[in-house]
Amino acid sequence: MMGRLAGQNRLRAAVRALSESEADNRVCQRIAGRIVCITSTTKGGKTMATRTGSALWEGTLKEGKGTMKLGSGAFEGPYSFSSRFEEGKGTNPEELIGAAEAGCFSMALAFNLEKAGHPAKRVSTAATVKLEPGDGGFKITSIDLKTEANVPGIDETKFKDQAELTKKTCPVSVALAGTQINLEAKLV
Amino acid sequence: MMGRLAGQNRLRAAVRALSESEADNRVCQRIAGRIVCITSTTKGGKTMATRTGSALWEGTLKEGKGTMKLGSGAFEGPYSFSSRFEEGKGTNPEELIGAAEAGCFSMALAFNLEKAGHPAKRVSTAATVKLEPGDGGFKITSIDLKTEANVPGIDETKFKDQAELTKKTCPVSVALAGTQINLEAKLV
Repeated sequence: MMGRLAGQNRLRAAVRALSESEADNRVCQRIAGRIVCITSTTKGGKTMATRTGSALWEGTLKEGKGTMKLGSGAFEGPYSFSSRFEEGKGTNPEELIGAAEAGCFSMALAFNLEKAGHPAKRVSTAATVKLEPGDGGFKITSIDLKTEANVPGIDETKFKDQAELTKKTCPVSVALAGTQINLEAKLV
Repeated sequence: MMGRLAGQNRLRAAVRALSESEADNRVCQRIAGRIVCITSTTKGGKTMATRTGSALWEGTLKEGKGTMKLGSGAFEGPYSFSSRFEEGKGTNPEELIGAAEAGCFSMALAFNLEKAGHPAKRVSTAATVKLEPGDGGFKITSIDLKTEANVPGIDETKFKDQAELTKKTCPVSVALAGTQINLEAKLV
């Protein structure tokens, strides 16, 4: 109880430390001993970060064409039957999934290593996403993660434990429960 | 049985129609009455489309920085604690997930409408991805899809049936089984 109260006091102090205008639309929370604040887009008193992505498709599957777009405006690009199922120029939903999983994993592994007392200098992750035909159509059958991390002073076992934990708990991994995520983690 | 044999013959004819060099690394399959070919990157005789995405994170959670990259080279962009949990400039894994789901859904809805005898002129979909703090850390709690489609001659019920089917069966939806996907579909 005392630890919890002390934590709440630290949290209050951290929130007070924010300028008043910032505090207006921020909510802070203690997660695993760290204070994490996110911008509040409250609806019925509930706090969240809300992100958007969109897509337009025009025409049939084989002759049609589309674009996918990120809500931040960072990227908008064309996709087609050929860029998705063949080797045509353009992007496809599966490589966006791969980048999202790699991005979530790399950031979360850095955070988990930091909490374990071994901050990483660098975490580099590649995600390979397999789209395979089956009875009911195509399926994302697996995502293979290969991560390489520079983590001064950590031993192999501790590192692999944090990497496995991250694979299971990073928000994008949790959302991707309908596919198999495999991990190969290496200290460099 | 006769229908199946006729289908197989059509499939063989379609494969023969490909130039020999193309046929070498393509495998075709009938899916819901249509012939779909994908480039084969065979491993042990298994056919698949393989896509990659990657990410690099350097430093701690709050002060570190990262980049996410698509394997096709179509996009590479920075992300940070601020672009993910606050309103900082840059991208974040959740908007990539949103664009991937919107892209998969729009293309697959166009294909399902085509198979149902009502090809769409245009399918436009926005995906809103919510990232919320909970007991064990942040979680992608829901993805709200809003789709608007121009589909000449279709009635509302048939359209909504195809939209619901697509929400459940598109490969990215299936992979995202760990979050709640909601759909609002509208004919325009």
